Order: sequence, then C-alpha cells, then structure tokens
Amino acid sequence: MPSEFELIRRRFTYPTDHTDLGIGDDCALFRTQTNMQTVVSTDMLVEGTHFLPDAHPFDVGWKTAAVNISDIAAMGAAPRWIVLSMALPAAEDAWVDAFSQGFFECCTAFGVDWIGGDTTRGPRALNATVIGEIPTGQAICRNGGRAGDDLWISGQPGLAALGLQHLQKKITLHPDWVEPCLTALHRPQPRVKLGQALRNIASAMLDVSDGVLGDLGHLLESSRCGASLEEALIPFAAPLAACGDKALAREMLLSGGDDYELLFSASPAHREKIAQISASLELPLTMIGSLSHKAGSIWWVMEDGTTEQGVAKGYDHFTEGK
Amino acid sequence: MPSEFELIRRRFTYPTDHTDLGIGDDCALFRTQTNMQTVVSTDMLVEGTHFLPDAHPFDVGWKTAAVNISDIAAMGAAPRWIVLSMALPAAEDAWVDAFSQGFFECCTAFGVDWIGGDTTRGPRALNATVIGEIPTGQAICRNGGRAGDDLWISGQPGLAALGLQHLQKKITLHPDWVEPCLTALHRPQPRVKLGQALRNIASAMLDVSDGVLGDLGHLLESSRCGASLEEALIPFAAPLAACGDKALAREMLLSGGDDYELLFSASPAHREKIAQISASLELPLTMIGSLSHKAGSIWWVMEDGTTEQGVAKGYDHFTEGK
Repeated sequence: MPSEFELIRRRFTYPTDHTDLGIGDDCALFRTQTNMQTVVSTDMLVEGTHFLPDAHPFDVGWKTAAVNISDIAAMGAAPRWIVLSMALPAAEDAWVDAFSQGFFECCTAFGVDWIGGDTTRGPRALNATVIGEIPTGQAICRNGGRAGDDLWISGQPGLAALGLQHLQKKITLHPDWVEPCLTALHRPQPRVKLGQALRNIASAMLDVSDGVLGDLGHLLESSRCGASLEEALIPFAAPLAACGDKALAREMLLSGGDDYELLFSASPAHREKIAQISASLELPLTMIGSLSHKAGSIWWVMEDGTTEQGVAKGYDHFTEGK
Repeated sequence: MPSEFELIRRRFTYPTDHTDLGIGDDCALFRTQTNMQTVVSTDMLVEGTHFLPDAHPFDVGWKTAAVNISDIAAMGAAPRWIVLSMALPAAEDAWVDAFSQGFFECCTAFGVDWIGGDTTRGPRALNATVIGEIPTGQAICRNGGRAGDDLWISGQPGLAALGLQHLQKKITLHPDWVEPCLTALHRPQPRVKLGQALRNIASAMLDVSDGVLGDLGHLLESSRCGASLEEALIPFAAPLAACGDKALAREMLLSGGDDYELLFSASPAHREKIAQISASLELPLTMIGSLSHKAGSIWWVMEDGTTEQGVAKGYDHFTEGK
C-alpha cells in the first residue's frame, strides 16, 4: 500500500500560477498584492452529513472546492489559494483520483492555486481553507444592509434541495429536470464574478448555503433590520413549479439550502446597474423584497396582497437529522 | 439542543488582536504587512488516529493549534491567524468548552488570532489552518541543506512517543517521568521563537512530527543530500535513558514522532550563534551529525566508531495500525 506521502505526491500534483512555494514543505508561501485585505474561509464536508456515501468522488471534489470558493465570492473577493485536508478510511486510489479531478477542475475554473494539504486515516471528511484578496475596505459584509434597501437573489434557488429529494426517493422528478437539479446539487457554481461585480453596489451579502430564509435571517441579524418578501417576486424555477407539490416546492426554494447563490441587499438607486450586471453575466438576478426597520422580523406579502409573519429557518447540522 | 450557530457563538468567542473582521461573516479579513510573504499550513486531527477517544479535550484543543503553529515555526515564520473546523458527533457542551480553552490558550501563547471556523456533525475530527508571515525570501525551506552542514535538533525528542507507550500500557514509566512525557505528548510546544531566531542561519529546517529519522529523510530528499548521524551525540533524555529498554528508547527517540521539535541544518560557521540562541531561549540545541554528498543515504557512526547504514522510518497513517 502506498505511504501517506506517496499517495499525496502521486494523486495530487497540479501546477500553481501565483504561488512562491506550493506543496512539499512545512508550509506554502505566497505574496498578496499591496493595498489588499486577505480574505479567509474554511469549510468541512463529512460523508453522511454533507454528501451521500455513494456520491461520485468527482462531485465531492468539485463541491469541496466550490463551497469554500463561494464564501470568498460572498465577500466580493477574488479567490486565490486553497489548502485541503482529507481523512480517508484507507488509501483509495480510484476515489482519490476522481476526487482530485473534480477538486482541481473547480480550482482551475476559478483561478485558485492549490498549495498544500494533509492526508490522514479517518472516517471520510474533507476540509478546505480558501484564501482570497480584495481591495482594502471593499469587502461586502453581512452587516451593511439598511432599511429601504432592495433584497436580491441570484440564480434559481431550490434546485439543489429538489435534487436531493429526488436522490432520497422522496419525490420523483420529471426526467427533463433530473439533470439540472442534480447539477445544482453536485456542481454548485460559486458566484465569483457576480460577487466582484457587486463591490460598491451591494450593501450586505452572503451565500445561500443554509436556505434563503435561514441565510436571510443571518443578514437581518447582522444588519439589525427586518425584511418584507413578496411571494409573487420569488423565482420559482421550472423544476420547482413542475414538481407537483407546491408546499414542497416552496420549502425547497426558501429553506432547502446548498444553493450557493448570492443573497444581497442594495439601494434602490442601483437597480439599473444590477440589471446590467445580470445581463452581462447572463445570470438571473431577482429582486424579492426589501429591508425594513423592525429588526429580525420577516413579513410575507402574499400573492393576494395579504401579509403574514414568516419564520427564518435554515439547515442545522445538529438539530436536524442527517 | 443548541443549534450549530448558537454552539459556535457561545463556546467560541475570543478577542482578536490584529484582525479586521473575525468570526461571524462568510470570511474573515486581515491585512498582512508589506514586504512579507504569507505562510500557510493545514493539519487535521482525527479521533482514534491522532488522539485517543478518552484524551482530555483541553489537550486536544491545545494540540490542534500547536501542531499547526509548529509548521509555521518550521519555516522561521511568525504565526498570526488560525481558522478551525470541528466535526463532532453531537453538540457536546462540556467537551467543546474544555477543547476551546486548550485551543485558545495555545493561540494566545503564540500570538495567534482565531478568526473563523466551521462546525458540523460527524465523527470527531478537528482541522486547523494557520496563516503566518515572514519577510520575503527569508523562509527556511527543506531544500536548502548542503553537504558539510551540521545537523541539529532542538529539545528532547522521544518523550511524546514514550508517553504514548505508557498510556497504551506497553511500558510502565517511573512515576517521576510520567508527567514530562505526557506533557510532551499532550502539550507540545511549537518552537516559534527558535524558528525565527534561525532565519539566515539554518539552511534547511522542518518540524519533527513523523519522527527524527522520517523527517530527516524528508530533509535529505528535498536537499538531495545524505547524512551521517553520530550515535554518541544524540540526546537521550532522562526518561528514555531510564526506561530500561535501550532498543525501545532508541526507537522512540528516532522514529517516535509527535515531538514538534525542529530539525535543521546549518553551516559549521554558525555554531557559535546557535549556541547563543540555545542559551538565550534556554532550549537545548544538539548537533547530531552532518549532511553528506550521497543523496538519500543515512550513515550511523556508532559509539565504538564503527558505521552502519540506517533506514529512514516515520509514522505513516496508512500503513501502520491506528
């Protein structure tokens, strides 16, 4: 059986582009640009909690990089470097090969140098830490939202959660919708270009990993605002609209999680600019409501014009089942 | 049961000293100094592989920070920031409390700001990524060793491995030696001051996590050198000398691992400076041999003056038992 070190060397080699010293020493070395802040995020994916035991290792590799890069995107920053730790039950050549292909494909797609890692024996778990850069003072935090700001969401939230329902055989998707939903689940696209385009436009921003309502709750808490959401504005993607169960579709859309779309607030003065960004990136950006004064409260404006108070609900690794 | 987010907030709060934005957003933000390289390392500790299930969580917390900080020390760099991911089988308040105390005590001892993390459900595993700084060009890599350089080791390698033997009831240590050996095992001291003092002195350096011989093998491979080690010079710490089994003591000393002492090479011209560093840090630094031309080979000079060829051997998470 190959040693830990041989395994890493053989399976994980990839050229770096903007790094002084990559894998192979105690540490990696790189230089950030002047007048930049360094941006860091870390995320762990555990088999059975974040991905199914029979998930394709390519997809697990892609997602391990993507969910971390998404956090950098959510600050409006540029992802630049990543380190990866792997706990594996054994030195599994085929699994590691496919995993590394997915991981490196995602890193390459977003201009990220892989610069180091750790490999150890243990129940299968992957941890990546991604490091990025942003011009000092331009990071888009969660706490900058102000009453009166519009609330926006990118893409089509809910597809990833719908795909998971299908995999778990809780629903059966129409064959036409299986692929887009599973692609959303397995190969999330961090919104790196969008995040950077929204510098000096978005007042607050985060990525939707816990579900639209759960993450909206985080934005509201940090910004000390409330929100009103307009039911009629929320983008029901075709697979959600076609799934035949409106309550389920609504739950997937609002609380499903794993979407990695960006949820952000912006002054109404920026609507035109945001429409231009949407057009130039060919990415739907949908205004779904606005921020209000009353901290923490979420009001629903229903399609018939009535209102009701909503409850923020996100995915919780401890209180929900696996 | 507290939610994932409440758990993190309650158990993990600690002030930062040199960070623009700590925990609570998608990313942390900080600024590095000009003319510095950024230095990064990541390490995962898995229950059953790196620590025993009944290990005290304070010790696990200390060690999670320490083994990562040690990698920064081994480059001669200053550790500055750390992120932490935790997989836990459940939201265990008492365990997390004690773990966080050990983790933060180590971070504080070495001037490291904790700036973010992730908490998830899974078999118990901890991953930290530590980020440091070093003046550009001054990092001490593994590949700078040259034939003729002296080989040095800090501290008293072997005590951690001897402590583990005692815990596993393979040996019974004299009561006087239990505490120093278990302290070496549970509370390793990253040699941060030593690493920085050796800038422009050490030609190659790494920390001894896999055992002196295993890590020497890495230094020799990177530096394309061989080495000769002098048996009589190698520091047999008192507990090793007293353990009553010379072969075991030698194995612990040379292949035990988990010591986090620094192994480095330096020109003989620097002997006086190294002696001064040893005195000022009150830390033993012992010259144990020298680098030679023949790449990869390790020759032992025995106490009786005869020589034999040695074999590099380190801890391997995949080929050795848990």
